[in-house]
Amino acid sequence: MQLNCDLGESYGSWTMGMDAAVMPHIHQANIACGFHGGDPLTIRKTLALAAEHGVAVGAHPAYPDLVGFGRRSMDLSSEEIIATLLYQIAALDGMAASEGLQLTYVKPHGALYNDMMAKTEVRAAVMAALASYHRPLKLMLLATPQAQSHRDEAAAAGLSGLLFEAFADRCYDDKGALLSRRQAGAVLNQEQTLAQVTQLSRKGSVTTVSGQELHLQADTLCVHGDNLEAVNIIAALRQIVEVA
Amino acid sequence: MQLNCDLGESYGSWTMGMDAAVMPHIHQANIACGFHGGDPLTIRKTLALAAEHGVAVGAHPAYPDLVGFGRRSMDLSSEEIIATLLYQIAALDGMAASEGLQLTYVKPHGALYNDMMAKTEVRAAVMAALASYHRPLKLMLLATPQAQSHRDEAAAAGLSGLLFEAFADRCYDDKGALLSRRQAGAVLNQEQTLAQVTQLSRKGSVTTVSGQELHLQADTLCVHGDNLEAVNIIAALRQIVEVA
Amino acid sequence: MQLNCDLGESYGSWTMGMDAAVMPHIHQANIACGFHGGDPLTIRKTLALAAEHGVAVGAHPAYPDLVGFGRRSMDLSSEEIIATLLYQIAALDGMAASEGLQLTYVKPHGALYNDMMAKTEVRAAVMAALASYHRPLKLMLLATPQAQSHRDEAAAAGLSGLLFEAFADRCYDDKGALLSRRQAGAVLNQEQTLAQVTQLSRKGSVTTVSGQELHLQADTLCVHGDNLEAVNIIAALRQIVEVA
Amino acid sequence: MQLNCDLGESYGSWTMGMDAAVMPHIHQANIACGFHGGDPLTIRKTLALAAEHGVAVGAHPAYPDLVGFGRRSMDLSSEEIIATLLYQIAALDGMAASEGLQLTYVKPHGALYNDMMAKTEVRAAVMAALASYHRPLKLMLLATPQAQSHRDEAAAAGLSGLLFEAFADRCYDDKGALLSRRQAGAVLNQEQTLAQVTQLSRKGSVTTVSGQELHLQADTLCVHGDNLEAVNIIAALRQIVEVA
Repeated sequence: MQLNCDLGESYGSWTMGMDAAVMPHIHQANIACGFHGGDPLTIRKTLALAAEHGVAVGAHPAYPDLVGFGRRSMDLSSEEIIATLLYQIAALDGMAASEGLQLTYVKPHGALYNDMMAKTEVRAAVMAALASYHRPLKLMLLATPQAQSHRDEAAAAGLSGLLFEAFADRCYDDKGALLSRRQAGAVLNQEQTLAQVTQLSRKGSVTTVSGQELHLQADTLCVHGDNLEAVNIIAALRQIVEVA
Repeated sequence: MQLNCDLGESYGSWTMGMDAAVMPHIHQANIACGFHGGDPLTIRKTLALAAEHGVAVGAHPAYPDLVGFGRRSMDLSSEEIIATLLYQIAALDGMAASEGLQLTYVKPHGALYNDMMAKTEVRAAVMAALASYHRPLKLMLLATPQAQSHRDEAAAAGLSGLLFEAFADRCYDDKGALLSRRQAGAVLNQEQTLAQVTQLSRKGSVTTVSGQELHLQADTLCVHGDNLEAVNIIAALRQIVEVA
Repeated sequence: MQLNCDLGESYGSWTMGMDAAVMPHIHQANIACGFHGGDPLTIRKTLALAAEHGVAVGAHPAYPDLVGFGRRSMDLSSEEIIATLLYQIAALDGMAASEGLQLTYVKPHGALYNDMMAKTEVRAAVMAALASYHRPLKLMLLATPQAQSHRDEAAAAGLSGLLFEAFADRCYDDKGALLSRRQAGAVLNQEQTLAQVTQLSRKGSVTTVSGQELHLQADTLCVHGDNLEAVNIIAALRQIVEVA
Repeated sequence: MQLNCDLGESYGSWTMGMDAAVMPHIHQANIACGFHGGDPLTIRKTLALAAEHGVAVGAHPAYPDLVGFGRRSMDLSSEEIIATLLYQIAALDGMAASEGLQLTYVKPHGALYNDMMAKTEVRAAVMAALASYHRPLKLMLLATPQAQSHRDEAAAAGLSGLLFEAFADRCYDDKGALLSRRQAGAVLNQEQTLAQVTQLSRKGSVTTVSGQELHLQADTLCVHGDNLEAVNIIAALRQIVEVA
């Protein structure tokens, strides 16, 4: 199981995330593409940092909503989603290649990610965007009990592959969805996070909010690097997944 | 001599230029990259139109100034110019490839173009951006008596080549610069435009504002497609350059 | 019955609408505030034009979505809606006062307008924004059979008043909603438009898509000035409402 | 002598400055207006914080350059500067009034501030903007040996007044300009800052980089609240200016 983290989300004079501290510990950097964060200079520096640490890079495209950090659902048409994704993916791809890196996957950000998981049409548009890109790129999405159905959709769309991710620090409900952040217990503490990742690594399952065991096949684990405590957790998670 | 035209400068619900009418007549489409005009959907449609008519495509990057249409000089650092250009070039490049086209050149837009011609540091930053891009792209710039000096700079920077352009409808001063639009006679009428292009095609020269003959070696001719009259002029210019 | 029209929706170098031709014929100008259209210079010119023709001015605020022209629903929280509206209203209010005009009402734009009519929470946030503004401003919204319920909400929120508008060129369904533009017959032709406004003026009713007569109490009529034909219709509508 | 500080410069999810810690110590809050920082929600919260602490509020308008934080000079025409300022001032003014505060002054931000001090036409445009606003507002600008000339310009433009500011932590050259940040010694350390403010308070002068005494009549002192150390310095400066 790999570790992936959203990086390059600073914007101009505004800093976000401890990118330099996180990069040595992760396998995959999801790099913001300028629509929710990540100006051209930030993208370039983040790519250089990824190259320095041998980290794989993916595009982390979003709805065009800088002030809302891409966290607010927007009612885009399918062709708007496709063009908006192609633009962001292409920007990252060419900049990555110019730093000697090859972009290998795409992970939609924020509300676009949530809408992709919740709405068939949005997911179809996201897949159509990747399928119409001139090089094969994998799509990173949430590992759920619907994984096989998502694999079928991806195959029909002509995608080259999917990367299923689990969340290290989020509590799951019995259907395999993340508990809403508005609910108590939605975000796990450090101890719970380590336990959940240990279980995922060893048994390929999580314990849901109701105490049931839910099997999830995850290729990668989403981690966060907002502050020093978070970075320390990432380092601990790295050890867990490497042992597994 | 080729004909190049700035296209894809619509933005969202706002339309600019008669792109569909212009495209059949030109050889090279300079496509806006989203920073002064040209949203992702517009870029995609413009690329499809270029593909339909077999027109070569170039990126037309700008300062980040949507409300000012990239026409206002901005004091960017060299590294800001480089990253800003790489982002826009990459976005166009990947989207073009996804439409089956290969991006072959870059023409800076508006104030960035003017600053590139006027300021050594800006020109050096533009050249550094192209040189650091992962594929060779030519730089389109103004044909002036300083062409050899610009060729030397490009060679030193490691560029793959330059495309010198002349302006069909603008009056030149004796030094080979375009007369400022604020001066009387700066913009040629239809008859003058046709005469200037005929002279450029046959003799490789223009007659300056003071009546002198100035030699200019132009690979391509910048034309405008803002309205129906302009489109008709383009059609006439195409005949002139094809005969030549 | 007054005539209101969305104006000032140009942006930078992009022109939209025949504002100068429309202004002499209308009573109320809904002026874009910069979030879906309308840069500061455009706002200033539009206000000056309104002052010249003695037209009342209202703020026409939108979701922050320039590329989507405010036509895409966005999932803003109530406090985001309130702050976003206050900002836009205040910008218009102070600029209007500086042109010797007094802003008197607010008409939300596009998707925000639709969401306001469809969702109680959005409507409550819009009303809360107006109620928290330091001067009383009326809210313009759609005249529907729910008018009394909307009046009750406005009174509870502490608004100074409502302006109900009908649409000149849109077909109504039996519940008093506008027929979706995707349905055949949703947009009336010129003859139908004149007939609908004549009926609204004389009888205070429209004939719905199924042929029923629906009573609508409208203070103002929304008209469009996108092209010359539209402007001519506005002039004809002005005569109808003045006779009434 | 008052203390003024730039506040409300966060943007959406990006935080900047320790506004809550700074506000209790200052007299005047220069609040970002959305063009270089400061989204509507941030503005509203910053105004509420100012109201809570009885701090006077001013608008802190900028060039439209979010990614450059308003720090890059842009070549706007006078009428663009005027409209751009009116929009931002009006937005702040109406939002301040809605929080029970009265906007009393305007301090241009970043490159616009520098251009205002360096270029007569920019200063004239800034003054024209304030003069054309519907209520009198004072202009905050740099205290220099040219103060009387600036007062004459302001009187001719019809401004209601000027507020001259000195910088607590910046070294002055012999002409009264701030030493460029690129030069060694441009930014004073804590001890030097306290000494400079003590001298300003007691003697109305600073010691320039060459050791000369330069008289400066300052109404207010610009302080910074970027981090905890900076906040502590502000608290110390408050004591110095209160004793004076």
